[in-house]
Amino acid sequence: MIKTHQAGPLFTDLYELTMAASYYAHRIFSPATFSLFIRNTHPERNFFVAAGLEDVLNALTAFHFSKQDRQYLRSTGLFSDDFISYLSRLQFSGDVYAMSEGTIFFSNEPILEVTAPIIEAQIIETAVLNTIGFQTMIASKAARCIYAAGGRPLIDFSLRRTQGQDAGIKVARNTYLAGFAGTSNVLAGKIYEIPTSGTMAHSYIEAFSDELEAFYAYSDTFPESTILLIDTYDTLQGAKNAVKIAKALQERGNSLVGVRLDSGDMADLSQKVRDILDDAGLFEVKIFASSGFDEFKIARVISEGGKIDAFGVGTKAGVSADAPYLDIVYKMVRFNHRNVRKLSPDKVTIAGEKQVFRKPDTNGSHLEDIIGLRDESIPGGTPLLEMVLENGKLLNPHPSLADIRHRFKNNFSLLNEKYKTIYETVSYPVKLSKRLEEQQK
Amino acid sequence: MIKTHQAGPLFTDLYELTMAASYYAHRIFSPATFSLFIRNTHPERNFFVAAGLEDVLNALTAFHFSKQDRQYLRSTGLFSDDFISYLSRLQFSGDVYAMSEGTIFFSNEPILEVTAPIIEAQIIETAVLNTIGFQTMIASKAARCIYAAGGRPLIDFSLRRTQGQDAGIKVARNTYLAGFAGTSNVLAGKIYEIPTSGTMAHSYIEAFSDELEAFYAYSDTFPESTILLIDTYDTLQGAKNAVKIAKALQERGNSLVGVRLDSGDMADLSQKVRDILDDAGLFEVKIFASSGFDEFKIARVISEGGKIDAFGVGTKAGVSADAPYLDIVYKMVRFNHRNVRKLSPDKVTIAGEKQVFRKPDTNGSHLEDIIGLRDESIPGGTPLLEMVLENGKLLNPHPSLADIRHRFKNNFSLLNEKYKTIYETVSYPVKLSKRLEEQQK
Repeated sequence: MIKTHQAGPLFTDLYELTMAASYYAHRIFSPATFSLFIRNTHPERNFFVAAGLEDVLNALTAFHFSKQDRQYLRSTGLFSDDFISYLSRLQFSGDVYAMSEGTIFFSNEPILEVTAPIIEAQIIETAVLNTIGFQTMIASKAARCIYAAGGRPLIDFSLRRTQGQDAGIKVARNTYLAGFAGTSNVLAGKIYEIPTSGTMAHSYIEAFSDELEAFYAYSDTFPESTILLIDTYDTLQGAKNAVKIAKALQERGNSLVGVRLDSGDMADLSQKVRDILDDAGLFEVKIFASSGFDEFKIARVISEGGKIDAFGVGTKAGVSADAPYLDIVYKMVRFNHRNVRKLSPDKVTIAGEKQVFRKPDTNGSHLEDIIGLRDESIPGGTPLLEMVLENGKLLNPHPSLADIRHRFKNNFSLLNEKYKTIYETVSYPVKLSKRLEEQQK
Repeated sequence: MIKTHQAGPLFTDLYELTMAASYYAHRIFSPATFSLFIRNTHPERNFFVAAGLEDVLNALTAFHFSKQDRQYLRSTGLFSDDFISYLSRLQFSGDVYAMSEGTIFFSNEPILEVTAPIIEAQIIETAVLNTIGFQTMIASKAARCIYAAGGRPLIDFSLRRTQGQDAGIKVARNTYLAGFAGTSNVLAGKIYEIPTSGTMAHSYIEAFSDELEAFYAYSDTFPESTILLIDTYDTLQGAKNAVKIAKALQERGNSLVGVRLDSGDMADLSQKVRDILDDAGLFEVKIFASSGFDEFKIARVISEGGKIDAFGVGTKAGVSADAPYLDIVYKMVRFNHRNVRKLSPDKVTIAGEKQVFRKPDTNGSHLEDIIGLRDESIPGGTPLLEMVLENGKLLNPHPSLADIRHRFKNNFSLLNEKYKTIYETVSYPVKLSKRLEEQQK
């Protein structure tokens, strides 16, 4: 894998640095623990898929203010030379507990806890929130699409409308993590070794004098991997032209991979196109569909009898259109060896260093989660947070994306169907252990 | 200004490259013109603010497949050595017409047109759509916030929840372009020379034995730039503590800049806090507010009588939560010296190379736009598209962000209030010229 671009420690809100400067001025270096969790404000998401940890750990282990960074900070006039000199030596020396990427989790559960001298634990807040919040949001949206598709392959087509370049690359990664079969995104294919996919746009068809000529030209260039876009002029005529190409390819010893629909009534058109292909004996030619698909449109077209073998899933999944941000927060839960708790009515934080324990039912499926103390043990409960960084050092190499993808698939198969519904809010049971509850008093 | 990270030509959908390979195999190098526009599918946006051109032009003038890029493409097994060798020599040699950044525009108007040999014009599609689509979406959302705030300063606080790192940096740039006063984002401050802002989080208060002690500690470190977060425990008690700090700062010859509210009933609390400050004679101490603000919450809190001097605007503007993507498309409108037109019922494209002419009313305000032929001249109409790249060469240096911001401010003052409403759909008149209309038959 190729390392992705890292923004460095200036990728932060200014207040992280002004707080750090003030702690430094007052010689406050006591250890603090911060806990990362999603608040219970997402009726449209019954579960989340942990993602983004690898990028966070890469940022923490490389944490360093460059000379150029320090020059900029000096130019703001806000910071003393003494503090800037301190920053030049600052590294991340703390401990991190986290859920593995691909773990399913729920609102209010800590997915990562950081313990470090308060300046270090605080200064990384913005990057941790941004990285894990966004990647988790996308993996969670993608899992919903995977569920709706009922085993049909999905391809990420979102790159043209993601929110910027980093988003485009991370959407490809995290939709693949959640089970997508590939992406149209060439750069993500290179970085993460994700299978890439794509053939032609309408403009290609329009560059030839007619559709059939365009189809011949393309299949001549890619005889082994042609998928024909058949809706530029008339979808059914396009399907008939595709039959001609399929026959011509057969004569060369090749075969047409598929056709793609990109507009119109997908259920109706796909049935008619399937008939045209089947009548020509082309049972193995697949029908791909794209244009506005997300979990809702996928489910609808399937329920209407659409004969679609694979979906291109673009914009709406790539920006998580129905929930384009998560209410993810990073809150101090312990400072200087004492638990800390915020009491604002609708923004409660669970104090103390914690662990999440998952209990299975008799079939091995996820039954309920217990949030407990980190040093607690819950009979029959498997702890989900594990130490990944100790004194700033990575304890294990990152798992491969293929391994994370496999872990998620397994994990997802153990989640009861009722929580996977895309239409209703169904709350998975998450309780506090007695010891943790007592500690909140 | 520091150059931002550039993803390079693999930041593309695979089909741009497979089409290119097929054009190359068939020796199709004729010129094509592609037009970039937003489809008329955004009832929640009456106008858009053009943004992102600088990044597009930087990408086009630097367009180059590196050795590593070509190695990756070779490894896919899709492309001939001959084509990959062609890519090694490929640069962008075309012409680009575009609206300046900061220009207000409307649905269906071309905001950029590219003319180049078809491979070059096609291969840049994904990057052009992603870059201009996202930055325009953010600048447009920010302009709505600016309008709602009625002159009160806004600060971008979105970094922790933007969709990835590039998004965070571009949100700071494009909210500033549309009139925000600054950002919390330190990296964007460095790259774009945007004023940065921020003081403390709740965790800072919690790290001291009580609020007053925390306030003293902070104001001791930053006596000239303290804004106190007063809602950690009890907002009104926090305001009273802020009064003590303000008095102490006055004795030192400094003054408290302001207080910040981050929860609760903003209208009510801000009035009570204003009274506490005013009763102490602290008329110059400002009240800042943050937490969930977008144009709708800003307008509501102002209409309820909130005494707020400046707003921190975060997540909802940073992801354009009510419209998290634009239906922006890049369509071929001319190929090999003939106009091209797509006829699908709900996806009509206006054929030919075009110009947008803006006509003023008697007060100089924007009256209506006419989309015409590029070589047409419309009496009283000012053309909005100008040539920015000729034969792949930049015709002028990029305007500074300050200049673009100034242009937008001016441009926005000429847009009738009725189109600025954040609640209703009001369509600005956009017509086709007779010559352009005739050409569509």
